[in-house]
Amino acid sequence: MKVCALAGGVGGAKLAAGLQDALVPGDLSVIVNTADDFDLWGLHICPDLDTVMYTLADIANPQTGWGVRDESFAALSMLDRYGEDTWFKLGDRDIATHILRTSKLRAGERLTEITAHLSSALGVQSRILPMCDEPVSTVVYTPDGPLEFQEYFVRRGQRDEVLGVKLRGIEDARPTKAVSNAIAKADAIVFCPSNPIVSISPILAVPGMREALAGSSAPKVAVSPIVGGRALKGPADRMLKSLGHEVSATGVAGIYRGVVDGMVIDRADEKERPEIENFGMNVLATDAVMRDGADRTRLGREVLEFCAALGAG
Amino acid sequence: MKVCALAGGVGGAKLAAGLQDALVPGDLSVIVNTADDFDLWGLHICPDLDTVMYTLADIANPQTGWGVRDESFAALSMLDRYGEDTWFKLGDRDIATHILRTSKLRAGERLTEITAHLSSALGVQSRILPMCDEPVSTVVYTPDGPLEFQEYFVRRGQRDEVLGVKLRGIEDARPTKAVSNAIAKADAIVFCPSNPIVSISPILAVPGMREALAGSSAPKVAVSPIVGGRALKGPADRMLKSLGHEVSATGVAGIYRGVVDGMVIDRADEKERPEIENFGMNVLATDAVMRDGADRTRLGREVLEFCAALGAG
Repeated sequence: MKVCALAGGVGGAKLAAGLQDALVPGDLSVIVNTADDFDLWGLHICPDLDTVMYTLADIANPQTGWGVRDESFAALSMLDRYGEDTWFKLGDRDIATHILRTSKLRAGERLTEITAHLSSALGVQSRILPMCDEPVSTVVYTPDGPLEFQEYFVRRGQRDEVLGVKLRGIEDARPTKAVSNAIAKADAIVFCPSNPIVSISPILAVPGMREALAGSSAPKVAVSPIVGGRALKGPADRMLKSLGHEVSATGVAGIYRGVVDGMVIDRADEKERPEIENFGMNVLATDAVMRDGADRTRLGREVLEFCAALGAG
Repeated sequence: MKVCALAGGVGGAKLAAGLQDALVPGDLSVIVNTADDFDLWGLHICPDLDTVMYTLADIANPQTGWGVRDESFAALSMLDRYGEDTWFKLGDRDIATHILRTSKLRAGERLTEITAHLSSALGVQSRILPMCDEPVSTVVYTPDGPLEFQEYFVRRGQRDEVLGVKLRGIEDARPTKAVSNAIAKADAIVFCPSNPIVSISPILAVPGMREALAGSSAPKVAVSPIVGGRALKGPADRMLKSLGHEVSATGVAGIYRGVVDGMVIDRADEKERPEIENFGMNVLATDAVMRDGADRTRLGREVLEFCAALGAG
């Protein structure tokens, strides 16, 4: 069963790991948001790609979900000593990733090739695919004005109210050949429980991406990142609210309406089932909170079974 | 007493530290060889500048003489995991230096400004001055063909016979304004015990450098890096031999003939005094081997006294 997942950072990476566990090695492709990529000290940093890569390579920091396990921060402490503003917590091993990626980008390699090289070196058998090779940047509009995404997300700790989101450069982006292939060959397409506004929507906004998804007859299932009216992680709940969406699994389903065939929601949100089914979607209510590796694998397996049932139905 | 030193890496940095100890803070300028600078993974690395900076900031690794004390190598181990050839031992703190320098160079800052910024942040009150802001690269000719300097020096462990040395880009280099000023204002000019072929000669080869030195009436003194017919560190002895120089303090004095007024040699080489004096140079024979911080300070003080005596004479 070939599966194509769409993912952002930590939450998406967790389900991707669960799907990877539940599948034959090599049968998972993960299309990853790159709209929160940015440059710092001349290094090109791809937070979501790296979170997915470290998680699938099983070297992610289990406490934070991002960064590398048992990481050290000696370079950052030196940058601090040089008077630099060290708001973005770059670990030493993580810096190696950025140095090598940046060096290969400057040499003319595409992000897709580079990501394949890095993840393969870390032993990842799943395909980790940037949503596009063109640079796209999420700009977050707040009462204090527009902010670069990492400025909003990390530096200012997601405390600003989000009034709007713009994807700079998106009009020139295209799904890569690897992305188009992964979608075309998938037996199931899974929208991971990532932030629908700033993680999954940028992927869907790549011109041609919605058409590619619509062109696939595989069942498409989204896992809600909102459980009991709150985001499992990050600012998705506040963002949904300030942008006029309902802060619920139903609110998420509304965003994916017409794109996915099924929603996976938490048992706590079972009462929302009729409303989501009214959108023409099937619903699986299960334990959608991934606390540990066993949770991920179980949820991955349940999502795949749900997809298989939808495909057969 | 304003002192201007010329230095390469480890040996030169040690005497520069001794001079710094012996002087009023801020009275030392060190003109540093940049012809062994190179790029690795897109990072611009200046080994001699960094060795001098770390040494004068008192954060150098006392075992190796280069790199930072209590350094870690997590980024390098990750680069190794990515399949990279990690022959150049970049430490995590050291990488921060290269990242920041490279980022500032790309933003259009000159190496001179950047070095001032970095060394000042590390609390160095002496001025550390790249010999020029233009890129110059030492190419070492060996029986196996031409080698980039760090290829010869680090990767191949200085085992190749050196048949010739070329300084690529030297014709377009000029002493910086800061270098010219340091020379013009110096009350004494000290050639540190660095490799005369690949550390000091590149500085002297910058078009206009010899004229600037000749234009100064300050006493000029060189400290021999050859003691008892052997280099204190590195391949200077074999290099002198294969390039047709005598492997002795006298051989070094021959290279600096017409440029310096005095040579500081080790007591072990006292017998060479008459020959060096025949070059029209004054000679100070002392303990020229710097084993520890006390040695550096003592030698620094003796060199300055020798300069003062020459200036008064």
